[in-house]
Amino acid sequence: MFMFEPKIKVLRQKFLKEKLDGVFISSVSSISYLTGFTNFSKDEREAYLFIGKDFQYIITDGRYSEAVKNQVSHLTLFERGNNKSTEELLKKHKKDIKNLGIEEDDLTVSEHKIIKKHFKNIKHFEVSKLRSVKEKEEVKKIKKACALGDKAFKFILGKIIKGVTEKQIAYELEKFIKDQGAEFSFSAIVAFGKNSSIPHHQTGETKLKDGDFVLLDFGVKFQNYCSDMTRTVFFGRATDKQKEIYNVVLQAQQRAANFLNTKIKSGKKVTGTEVDRVAREYISSYGFPDIPHSLGHGIGLEVHEHPSLSSKSKDILKEGMVFSIEPGIYIPNFGGVRIEDLFVIEEDGLKQLTNAPLLPM
Amino acid sequence: MFMFEPKIKVLRQKFLKEKLDGVFISSVSSISYLTGFTNFSKDEREAYLFIGKDFQYIITDGRYSEAVKNQVSHLTLFERGNNKSTEELLKKHKKDIKNLGIEEDDLTVSEHKIIKKHFKNIKHFEVSKLRSVKEKEEVKKIKKACALGDKAFKFILGKIIKGVTEKQIAYELEKFIKDQGAEFSFSAIVAFGKNSSIPHHQTGETKLKDGDFVLLDFGVKFQNYCSDMTRTVFFGRATDKQKEIYNVVLQAQQRAANFLNTKIKSGKKVTGTEVDRVAREYISSYGFPDIPHSLGHGIGLEVHEHPSLSSKSKDILKEGMVFSIEPGIYIPNFGGVRIEDLFVIEEDGLKQLTNAPLLPM
Repeated sequence: MFMFEPKIKVLRQKFLKEKLDGVFISSVSSISYLTGFTNFSKDEREAYLFIGKDFQYIITDGRYSEAVKNQVSHLTLFERGNNKSTEELLKKHKKDIKNLGIEEDDLTVSEHKIIKKHFKNIKHFEVSKLRSVKEKEEVKKIKKACALGDKAFKFILGKIIKGVTEKQIAYELEKFIKDQGAEFSFSAIVAFGKNSSIPHHQTGETKLKDGDFVLLDFGVKFQNYCSDMTRTVFFGRATDKQKEIYNVVLQAQQRAANFLNTKIKSGKKVTGTEVDRVAREYISSYGFPDIPHSLGHGIGLEVHEHPSLSSKSKDILKEGMVFSIEPGIYIPNFGGVRIEDLFVIEEDGLKQLTNAPLLPM
Repeated sequence: MFMFEPKIKVLRQKFLKEKLDGVFISSVSSISYLTGFTNFSKDEREAYLFIGKDFQYIITDGRYSEAVKNQVSHLTLFERGNNKSTEELLKKHKKDIKNLGIEEDDLTVSEHKIIKKHFKNIKHFEVSKLRSVKEKEEVKKIKKACALGDKAFKFILGKIIKGVTEKQIAYELEKFIKDQGAEFSFSAIVAFGKNSSIPHHQTGETKLKDGDFVLLDFGVKFQNYCSDMTRTVFFGRATDKQKEIYNVVLQAQQRAANFLNTKIKSGKKVTGTEVDRVAREYISSYGFPDIPHSLGHGIGLEVHEHPSLSSKSKDILKEGMVFSIEPGIYIPNFGGVRIEDLFVIEEDGLKQLTNAPLLPM
């Protein structure tokens, strides 16, 4: 069981250190992280947190107030409704806050307009970075999600038969995961043949035929924590070109991971960009197209979170961070290969969390 | 098959009428509506549209560019990547646009900051209202989703047995819907007993027992269009109090629908507030707590869209609009009843789209 009160304390320390007197939090993943309450919809704005030096509110409406009263006892419930608006609460605490933090990547322009009416000094505050270093309890949950993903991959290999459609494979995979008491962390990408050259192919009605690439990118959500993994296999005998692509991608992944591991073990600082570059340059050195996406992303309550392993990322990779390493080669009208695994940085080095089998080549 | 080019024309006419020279569109549902491409994630920003008097761009990255090239031929693809940013495209068209429209309810503060650097006059532009009046083809799809929902409800009634958990019911329901080639339009709410007093209860491990309320709120997504329906039944014999609550909710719904239908047939203007008030006042007149949510919401590509039937809604209800009417009574530590159906306004009056059986009382 998590304790959520300490998280509010850490948050408060952090915003005070940034010379803020309070923060207004809007993103569902930050709210889940700070409260343990995970039932708010991501499609709509159903809640906010408003935390100052001496107060801490959760703002929601009558659809959730009873549940929040029971489950989020460390915060004061402000029930907005026909006669009570969030704006009133902001007004009430106007005098307590000179500098207010907001999540600029999440707050909308219209919400910002209302806040601006009452607070003059508004700054960006990155709640999501609080989440990037995971507690042991959190890593445990991600590990469980990864183990379930490995199991699901082994199961689905048996369903890859001639004539099956991408959608059927995705469906069987989802059923299996649901039967284990978990769910997809995102809509699975299943791509056969040429479709695999589209990194985010929309799983469709394409039927499997001999010689096809089979790209499977899926994740498991278990107790709110996500896994993410990609495997590419071949249906039938792989051609030499297919094998070459596969091996270059696999090597690119292993080189990036080894590079990172060496850096960590030697106690040196390492950024997302540096790791991204290792894989990117390796693939380019074989004349294949540049990876059209970043090499990896943090993961936790969300499938994609801080840190980023991309060509522009200044994020420093630290102990406790969990992220993917997922190079890919995509050749239009031919096909593509992506291999993705999750890793955690532990005290003694990099540890791989996903362990579904790779091709013996 | 939809034709998407005319939708861009209608959009252009609308923004020119509002004295705008272009719009920057960020919401996934607006992008789906205007392009027919439905594979962008809602959790992240994977695409934008940028439409001016003489140009129309879809902005996305290498993960999607091949698919977009094939499927969105009526727009110019701008592939952003390591060396090409959205900002460059904005800069390029700076001179063409004096007044720019944005979706204030969707665009984030950090995106707005970038846009502000290049455009001085930025105004709110409501794309989602374009969607509120549905085409016949769209209503047809919603009808199909509703019919599948009705079928699923009949199926699930047979699974409501003593000791079953809320999660099991949700799972069986989802499996049934997936087997029909459709999916949930949102995570189903299954609430037993006292849990039904929480309007948006998080489906959990509660087991069904005699005398329980059973509240089922679920929707079907079929060919990207959503349905939404709530039924409340009793497991075992309902008490007089339970029956009274049920009847007041049902009457409230029917009165609201009849009121609306009469207005439409007489050709009079009617707003969301007026319909909301009919149900709200009826429930209050029996001394029950006020409905803690709005009476209804538009539906289409999204589960919740324009128009709104709430105590503050000035939206005028027109022919072609599809929305829910869903009054509820919730009594803490006792239980709750909600009855929700979808309706469409047709030329000759209001028509109900969901038709799952109600209780014979």
